[in-house]
Formats: sequence, structure tokens, C-alpha cells
Amino acid sequence: MNKFIALNQGSGGKQTHELISGVFAKRFGMTEPLTDSATLDESGLTLAFTTDSYVIDPLFFPGGNIGKLAVCGTVNDLAVSGAIPIYLSASFIIEEGFTLYDLEIIADSMAEEALNAKVKIVTGDTKVVEKGKCDCLFITTAGIGVIKPGSDHIAKGKRIKSGDKLIINGTIGNHAVAVLGARNNLNFSSSVISDCASMNHMIRDLLQGCGEIHFMRDLTRGGLAAVLNELARMTGKGISIDELSVPIDDPVKGLCEILGFDPFSLANEGKALIVTGEDDFEKALKILQYNPLGKKSAVIGEIVDEHKGTVVLNTFSGGKRILEMPSGTMLPRIC
Amino acid sequence: MNKFIALNQGSGGKQTHELISGVFAKRFGMTEPLTDSATLDESGLTLAFTTDSYVIDPLFFPGGNIGKLAVCGTVNDLAVSGAIPIYLSASFIIEEGFTLYDLEIIADSMAEEALNAKVKIVTGDTKVVEKGKCDCLFITTAGIGVIKPGSDHIAKGKRIKSGDKLIINGTIGNHAVAVLGARNNLNFSSSVISDCASMNHMIRDLLQGCGEIHFMRDLTRGGLAAVLNELARMTGKGISIDELSVPIDDPVKGLCEILGFDPFSLANEGKALIVTGEDDFEKALKILQYNPLGKKSAVIGEIVDEHKGTVVLNTFSGGKRILEMPSGTMLPRIC
Repeated sequence: MNKFIALNQGSGGKQTHELISGVFAKRFGMTEPLTDSATLDESGLTLAFTTDSYVIDPLFFPGGNIGKLAVCGTVNDLAVSGAIPIYLSASFIIEEGFTLYDLEIIADSMAEEALNAKVKIVTGDTKVVEKGKCDCLFITTAGIGVIKPGSDHIAKGKRIKSGDKLIINGTIGNHAVAVLGARNNLNFSSSVISDCASMNHMIRDLLQGCGEIHFMRDLTRGGLAAVLNELARMTGKGISIDELSVPIDDPVKGLCEILGFDPFSLANEGKALIVTGEDDFEKALKILQYNPLGKKSAVIGEIVDEHKGTVVLNTFSGGKRILEMPSGTMLPRIC
Repeated sequence: MNKFIALNQGSGGKQTHELISGVFAKRFGMTEPLTDSATLDESGLTLAFTTDSYVIDPLFFPGGNIGKLAVCGTVNDLAVSGAIPIYLSASFIIEEGFTLYDLEIIADSMAEEALNAKVKIVTGDTKVVEKGKCDCLFITTAGIGVIKPGSDHIAKGKRIKSGDKLIINGTIGNHAVAVLGARNNLNFSSSVISDCASMNHMIRDLLQGCGEIHFMRDLTRGGLAAVLNELARMTGKGISIDELSVPIDDPVKGLCEILGFDPFSLANEGKALIVTGEDDFEKALKILQYNPLGKKSAVIGEIVDEHKGTVVLNTFSGGKRILEMPSGTMLPRIC
């Protein structure tokens, strides 16, 4: 590893994984595979526990702001681990001179999104640092959820088997493109709106209505490509994806082509990869499509016995290529 | 409130309380009195949940570093609410260009302190921001603890009554003075070492050995003065403190005189205010003094029926003065 921390070590790709595994996980005795939330057994109760720091730039973007994002992100991390999110903490690092007006708008968004997701922000902290010592505002949320018996296999994909179907609940890349558009230094106007949303109610309906959910993960930093590669590595299975079946909005596709971004590696904030048993994907799809957050849900591929540990993309031109773990320079501070 | 966030709103005194109450607590539906950790009832289990962001400057100081501090601080917040701390999360915001070497030393300290406190760091997050967008490294920890039946009154001091004795487990001000000494821009050398330590084992022994613990709070930002004033406001009782009985090391006293600081308002990281029933303080003192972290424990005052809601200091010169909630400019980034 490099002697100095680089921006790409925070982008959710290969370098982030190396930093977390090499510096933190081994020292803290965390066992691989690392997931976005820890599963804890406490006096007969199975809890999920997660945390995320939000350093998004800019703080406000089409479809949300850092406050909404900080609630949705932690709610989603809990939900995709099969937990019912219940309690959140919120810790603020504020730059001296930040406006009270913006802080109140952001706090309003957090309160509104917590109400919407039916979680309670129960504890927090506030620090202020000198002007120039942080970039406006960073928020760190942590969350506690309760995992019902029978759902504790989901986060680590313990029941994944060949033939399982891979579903995503809509278009990818919208969040990253919306945030890029909102950045002053990129001179394009964009009609794209972030998908930032709490998915816990949709996921609860899915778990209640469809027994055989084998894996879920939200498609945040590193996007679909990172999650697919983690899943392949974690299970040792092959993954086959049909490029054409992955929903991408035209403006996102167009902007990715112009700017040279791969939509598969872009961050989302209201999208999850869901893996179901071979016989259950139609039921799952129906439940997801019934929800406003899942209208454009689609089956995008399956778990296979071939090319173990590798994600293969069947391209729109009829070829095949390996979809790698995102690596190198990606968009910084997208969440 | 001012239109722009000011440094003193992060110092743990009056302005911090106004910011938290006015902006966050009312929106998030938190009920006063606000404590450092939330108490949650979940399927027959009573949990404590807390979070803190650490933005200390400098990262390394005599007696610890930001990593040790981030573990001790969250462990202590749980312990003083009567909980056994069990799980921690750790989220890192790192400035591009920060050295891997320092990050590893800090992670080592966290692992060591977690082992010492017998808590497990189970989940985390890592973000990297561009050079100049944060000050080296900020760490946010959250923690979960289990509160045993019969200890859930402690955080809010529900059983406090007149005649109760106030104890602190040693000298105050050491942490703040040690950090000040380590700051390059203050040109004094100091032999003072931070008291940064996890108090959970000492507190566990105290709770097991002495039934009548009516209140505990760690003396962090805002110091002893802030905690005493919060307690007076929360209970509506008067508090009487004997200035001479409050243990302060000579070098701390001397430096405070030179620099114009009030040791009662300085942050500590291994000290707690403990309130016991009138008949139990000797037992409590004995248990505390047996522990290396409590050797200099002392009774510093009592709960009284007079001057309700106010903290009165019986000064060393024989006079009386009101000890106010710290206000205005205090030391920033001391934790």
C-alpha cells in the first residue's frame, strides 16, 4: 500500500477494500467477508449495527441533501442485511461560519426522512472546527436494527446457489450523475435526479412476501460493479450479467459516454442488488415493481457454476467481458 | 441564535446546548433532559446507544491519540449511563495525503484500547476527502451497551435526593492541559499527561459493590462545571461544592493560572462525577480508590435543598460563588 492515503482509497473500489482489510479489519479482529453492517447476538436478540460518514460535495443536490442521504444510507445498510431499522445516531462536524439556515434545512430533511423510514434519531454529537478545517459539514450516522429469525443469512449470502436470479430495483447511476451536475466546477446542466431514498419498507414487503431472498446489498460507492465482485469473491460462485437488461436512464447513459464514466461503477443511494432462488424471482419482481421505489425493477443476470469468483458481462454487442472490481480514480465525495 | 455557526457552539457549554436543543433535539423528537447516550427498550433488553465525533488537534498528545480517545470516549459514555459497553463502530474521515504510518499507529491504539475495555469494534466506514478539506483525521465512534435491570435510572439521575454525595474519581483538567501543551502554537512544555482511559471496569465494580449510585456522567467538554450545571437543571436540586476538595494537580493549577483557564471548565477523558446516597459514599470511595483510575477519588460536595437549580462553590477563601455553566470561548477541538 502507498505510504500516503490517496483519494481513491475512499471510493469504494479495490483500494478501499485493501485499506479496510489491511489497516482496520485485521487489527479490530473483524472476520471476512466484511459487510456494511455487523450482525450481533445479544440475549436472544439478533441486532444489525452499522455506521457511515457522509462527506458529499456539494451538500445539496437534485433529489436530496447530505441530511437525507445520511438517514437513507444507514437505513438502507440495515435493511439490506435483513434487519428492521429502528434507531439512528447522528454526529455532526461543522465548519465555523456554516450558516444556521442551511443546518436547519438539513436537520429538517433528516427529521422528515426518519419519519418516512419510521426510524428514530435517538442520540448524537456536535463538533465545530475552525474555518478551513473541514468542508462545510460532515455527518456520521450509525444505526441499530433488529434481524428477524430466518433473515440472518442474507448479508453474507450464505444460501446463494447456482441458478439464483439477480435483480436490481431500477436504474443505476442517477445519484452520482445528479451530484456531478450539482458541482459547480462541472459545467453541464442535468435533468437527472438522485435516487436517494430509504428502501426499508420495500425490502420489508419483499421479505414478507417472498421467502427465498438469498442476498441483498445496496449499490453505493463502487456501484453495481463493486457489489457484484464482492458477491462473487464472497461466495466463490460465477456471476453472469446481461448488459442490456441493466436499466439505465438515457440522460445518465449519455452523460457517462461524454464524461467517460462507467455507469456500472457509479454510486446509487436507493438501489439494491437482490438475489432470489431460481423459482422465486417472478414473485420478487412483482412485489418490487408494486413499490414506487421498484417500478423499473429488472432481472439482470444469474449465479452460475462457470468462471468461479468472476463477474462476466454479456455485452449488448453479443460479446463477453469480465466486469472488474472498480479500481483507481473514481468520483470522490459522492456520498 | 447567531446566523453563522461559531466555534463556541462546539465547546460543550451553554452555546452547544442551545444549538443541540434548538436545531436538532426538537426536530428529532428527542426528549429533554438530553444525556450522552440514549436508553432503548428492545424485546425485553435495555440498550444504551451513543455516538461521538473526535476532531482533536493535535492527533497525538501525552497519554494518547485520537484513536485511543475515540474508543475511551464512547466506552465511557456507555459506562456512565449504567451500561456494560459491548460493541463499537468506527468511521474515519481521512485527509488525502495523511500518512499510512500514523493511521496504523492510531488503529493500533484503538485495537489495544478496545481489548483493554473488552469491547469489540464490529463495523466501520472510511472516507477520504481532498487535501485541505479536513484536518488530517476525524473519527466518529458509536457504541452499544446493555443496561442491567435496576441501572436505567442512572443517566437521568431519577433517584437523586438531598443529602446525596458527589464524588469525582481524581484530578481534573489534565486532558485539556496535556492537549494544549502538545499544540505547537502554545509555547510551553508540560509534564501533564492526559487522563484518557476507559472507566467501564471501574464503574462495573462500583455498580456491583455499591447499590445506591444515583447518577454518573463523564466530565468531558465543558468539564465539571458543565456536568454539575446540567445535573442541577435536570433535577431542580441545589448543588454545593467545596472548592478545596476538588483534586487538581499542581502543574495543572499553575498553568491554568498563567493561561487564564478555569480548571472546572476543562475537558477530561477519564473522569466521572458520581452521585451516591448519603450512606453509601464511603463504600463507593473505597471501591473507586482501589482502582488505578480512581486512586485520587474524593467527595467534592452534596445535593442540597437550597438554591435550587444552581451550583454554589464554597471557595477556598471561605466565600461562596455561583459556578455557572461554561459559556463563550473555550478551548476548541480538545476531543
